[in-house]
Amino acid sequence: MRHALGIDVGGTKIYSAVIDENGKIVSNIERHPTPATFEDIKNTFKNIIKAHEKDIDVIAFSTCGAVNNENNHILGSTGNIAKGYPDMPFTGLSSKPVFVENDANCAAWAEYKIGASKGTKVSVMLTLGTGVGGGIIINNELLKGQNGAAGEMHFKMYCDKRRKCTCGGWDCFEIYASGKGLKITAEEISKNPEITTYDVIEGVNNNDSMMIEIFNKWQDDITNGIIGLSNIFDPDCIVLSGSMAEFVDTEKIQTNANKEIITTPIEVKKAQAGNYSGMIGAALLAFEKGIK
Amino acid sequence: MRHALGIDVGGTKIYSAVIDENGKIVSNIERHPTPATFEDIKNTFKNIIKAHEKDIDVIAFSTCGAVNNENNHILGSTGNIAKGYPDMPFTGLSSKPVFVENDANCAAWAEYKIGASKGTKVSVMLTLGTGVGGGIIINNELLKGQNGAAGEMHFKMYCDKRRKCTCGGWDCFEIYASGKGLKITAEEISKNPEITTYDVIEGVNNNDSMMIEIFNKWQDDITNGIIGLSNIFDPDCIVLSGSMAEFVDTEKIQTNANKEIITTPIEVKKAQAGNYSGMIGAALLAFEKGIK
Repeated sequence: MRHALGIDVGGTKIYSAVIDENGKIVSNIERHPTPATFEDIKNTFKNIIKAHEKDIDVIAFSTCGAVNNENNHILGSTGNIAKGYPDMPFTGLSSKPVFVENDANCAAWAEYKIGASKGTKVSVMLTLGTGVGGGIIINNELLKGQNGAAGEMHFKMYCDKRRKCTCGGWDCFEIYASGKGLKITAEEISKNPEITTYDVIEGVNNNDSMMIEIFNKWQDDITNGIIGLSNIFDPDCIVLSGSMAEFVDTEKIQTNANKEIITTPIEVKKAQAGNYSGMIGAALLAFEKGIK
Repeated sequence: MRHALGIDVGGTKIYSAVIDENGKIVSNIERHPTPATFEDIKNTFKNIIKAHEKDIDVIAFSTCGAVNNENNHILGSTGNIAKGYPDMPFTGLSSKPVFVENDANCAAWAEYKIGASKGTKVSVMLTLGTGVGGGIIINNELLKGQNGAAGEMHFKMYCDKRRKCTCGGWDCFEIYASGKGLKITAEEISKNPEITTYDVIEGVNNNDSMMIEIFNKWQDDITNGIIGLSNIFDPDCIVLSGSMAEFVDTEKIQTNANKEIITTPIEVKKAQAGNYSGMIGAALLAFEKGIK
């Protein structure tokens, strides 16, 4: 059985582990804080690789940022990570094959191979965290687009400029359906600029009617985005992952979305591939596409 | 060279012609009003087929309504055509192979093979008519979805229930970007319930400031939808077709959309495959996929 060294690169942490062809983690999981500079990130990668290089067949990066169609280069900006990071020479880091893919795409692939969307024809995964990521799989292929940047969940929820999105545009799905979106909805309804997403979740658990109103509005926004994506893709399944996904009521979202979807009724499911789905998906993709 | 009998089925007219493998129409184009009943539509098909059957290799239907992934059966409702139409036994109409695809998908395929999106990796075609149709091509394949219904341009432009859409949902792209959408925008701004899309276009030509405002609002709605589709698909090219497309300023839409698109800049083009792109696309698809 072949093995991959999976490396998951986020803005705050870098995880790594050895993963087999079944998507099973077969080593300890190493955790490093993401260094602040390009050189220190590169050195962290080198040290991780050095420790495992002789035992593995491919190095599989799951990274923040869009990744090109050749899976070796990051396209453009990547949020809160060192500025020069997109210039990382991934393929130069090892004599073994190196495969790179966007983290949301990797997580979607893990769900498709060993998780919630296993066996589906068309699936859309939404990562609901501080922001919103997307990974779309059609007939056993990731939707990558012209240059590899597809799956950005920046489509408008309103066209009259209400909320500025982190992307610089206005009123994208991300700025409504994310944790940040929940906080803004909470501020708008409660008129309290100090309110946190934690306050909302706790309030819902304590049956606080205003917190329930806030939460339902946020969940309706997620549902409205899912309706549009479903009419566009006619998917079997929408998978919700990320830290905010644990709070949502998938059954309610599914029922309400299917009332408006005009293509085929969908299933809405929570992710099942676990916390390390990024590096697991990267490894499973690398076995299929990263070893020539 | 092989030949297809292309038959384009709309709510008001049925067109037919013999088409070669280059997408060239090599016979007269026949026009029939679409009969009001299932039986009469079926008889019209039979008569068209009978006249050409011996000279062609495949029969290629471009039809209103979503078509299944096996390209032989219509899924669900099809707007203003005889009620039983989705039960049409297409494959039983001839001893020659019969291939069926949705009209917007066919037109998108014609643009991809011989028109505006020729040579692209990912293209999205929007048919701006009374409604809005969509056809999406990714890596030489039509996006069909779980059951064949993908490409429905029913994603929300607002989430606060402003306009009821023809699909039964609220505030879909279709009810803003279509001819019907332009009329509603005109009614809202002019406060005149009798205003027509023709009044708006004529007013724009006469430099009437209110008509220009209405038109620009409609065109901005089209642009806003294109921004979302572009971030989702990272396409090379958006093709605008249909009766309303002739009025839009593709250069302006392209410039404004690219200001907000965070994936890769797109091209916005008008369709080039002509008025019969539906049956031409059906024929070209049938040559590739309809003859076993």
